[in-house]
Amino acid sequence: MFREKIKVLDCTVRDGGLMNNHNFDTRFVRSVYQALSDAGIDYMEIGYKNSPRLFSPKEYGKWKFCADQDIAEVIRGIKSQTKISVMVDVDRVDVDDVVPKKDSPVDMIRVATYVKDVDKAIYLVNHFADKGYETTVNIMAISRALDNELTECLEQLEDESRAQIIYIVDSFGSLYQETTEFLIKKAKNILKSKEVGMHAHNNQQLAFSNTIEAVIHNANYVDGSIYGLGRAAGNCPTELILGFLKNPKYDIRPILDVISKEFVPLQKKIEWGYFIPYAITGILDEHPRTAIALRGSDKKENYREYYESLVGESED
Amino acid sequence: MFREKIKVLDCTVRDGGLMNNHNFDTRFVRSVYQALSDAGIDYMEIGYKNSPRLFSPKEYGKWKFCADQDIAEVIRGIKSQTKISVMVDVDRVDVDDVVPKKDSPVDMIRVATYVKDVDKAIYLVNHFADKGYETTVNIMAISRALDNELTECLEQLEDESRAQIIYIVDSFGSLYQETTEFLIKKAKNILKSKEVGMHAHNNQQLAFSNTIEAVIHNANYVDGSIYGLGRAAGNCPTELILGFLKNPKYDIRPILDVISKEFVPLQKKIEWGYFIPYAITGILDEHPRTAIALRGSDKKENYREYYESLVGESED
Repeated sequence: MFREKIKVLDCTVRDGGLMNNHNFDTRFVRSVYQALSDAGIDYMEIGYKNSPRLFSPKEYGKWKFCADQDIAEVIRGIKSQTKISVMVDVDRVDVDDVVPKKDSPVDMIRVATYVKDVDKAIYLVNHFADKGYETTVNIMAISRALDNELTECLEQLEDESRAQIIYIVDSFGSLYQETTEFLIKKAKNILKSKEVGMHAHNNQQLAFSNTIEAVIHNANYVDGSIYGLGRAAGNCPTELILGFLKNPKYDIRPILDVISKEFVPLQKKIEWGYFIPYAITGILDEHPRTAIALRGSDKKENYREYYESLVGESED
Repeated sequence: MFREKIKVLDCTVRDGGLMNNHNFDTRFVRSVYQALSDAGIDYMEIGYKNSPRLFSPKEYGKWKFCADQDIAEVIRGIKSQTKISVMVDVDRVDVDDVVPKKDSPVDMIRVATYVKDVDKAIYLVNHFADKGYETTVNIMAISRALDNELTECLEQLEDESRAQIIYIVDSFGSLYQETTEFLIKKAKNILKSKEVGMHAHNNQQLAFSNTIEAVIHNANYVDGSIYGLGRAAGNCPTELILGFLKNPKYDIRPILDVISKEFVPLQKKIEWGYFIPYAITGILDEHPRTAIALRGSDKKENYREYYESLVGESED
């Protein structure tokens, strides 16, 4: 038995790109697209649509900018029902870089925002909807949102935005299943005309269970990434989502193949997954940036000292 | 806010011993005992009390037998409130090897059993209770138990056994939170005079969330292991449990220290954690033995072929 409305979005290349400045080569990205297509995954998020006037193409790979011709090169010749998604951040996109949907290989644009920036997000998402794209708003750092501000944010999204889907984003991997239940129920209660989605980080090994929890409470859009690849502790593994969902349209085998061929070797070059500093930031509901810095330093395994550096300062 | 009745049992050395034939040296086991003691953990499970007449001490390390003098060497000189637990398997113990509690450093004996062997488990656990030990019965492979047989098993344990605690053991790491909720509620409903415990495996990255789920539904005994060390995918990480529980008697810092000093180096010698073959056996509700064998072979990363070997045979 399965719920046909559930859609899986794989954000491997987009979220994983945060670990290598979006420098995946076209061959790798085509392998991922082929695997997701063969597995029947609904969406593939390929990167950010950042403005090359705000970030230097010399410092970042092409999946920070997602030029339409680069996407075209990835999908060329591969038979697929998988739609292409790109993410934009408030204040980092030039809307004039985005051509109308009919002229682009992109199907969906997801706008990532903090609660405080929801007005900007609504402007962007309505602009992209006008250009013909499927659209979502992804509310980041939701574990830090004050309840009254989140209520107002969700009400605005319901009343003023044309986004079809609103995502709860556990940026810090700090949610437990009870918190997830609370947030998804709250979102479903306010967003009468929209679908709700879940994007979970895996700092405390809870990304998969929080995604299941969201599905139990009627979120119909779930994010995964192959072998959990993503920033720091990574995301909910796509292969586990497919093992859980019983929809016969999905096939786990192409995902297993691409893990063997691409992700096992990649693990020797990029570090992601369960490491103690990421667990600590999850436990403490903190951004992982200091943990990522620690893992790149010669103190990468000084866990107690790192923990004490985070809990040592009073915030009074 | 915390629930004072919750007790944490760390089974690092016992369950981890399944990955190295119980060959941890005394220095390592003392480091673990010191860390658990400093962290305020309630119980440390140190190994199996198997009979040396059934298994050769030449083939296995001392933590397969847990002679009292070996345990005494571990705890000597370390200030601690942490109690010592050993596990026995039905049919693999000689009850005459177990001296009365007053003459032993062991505090608790846990009897591991399948549903079908509950009569033998009750005999053993009552014998050990007579000798003065705290006792538990751990029901293994619970995901495979037929509901009517599990009901009878739990009723017998309630009526006939002197075990204080009955554990639900997710041997294959195949439970989801809804299944865990069902099993814990069922156990609590029948076991009116006993506490309920949870021992989870991490094949699908659900050991921690299933442990939280058990706590939500009033299980008061939870098993963890440091850095998740345990058979195959391992167990619920003790450090994550301490991050979740708000009981001020626990201190996560000694656990972080021993991970840095002992477990990071150990990871270069023993493999445990999230690997695709273990995820596959979890998804399929299978014993991990074929996955462990695969990881020791030259096909260790042929995930698709392994998956197809498990799903290929009809069981009609």
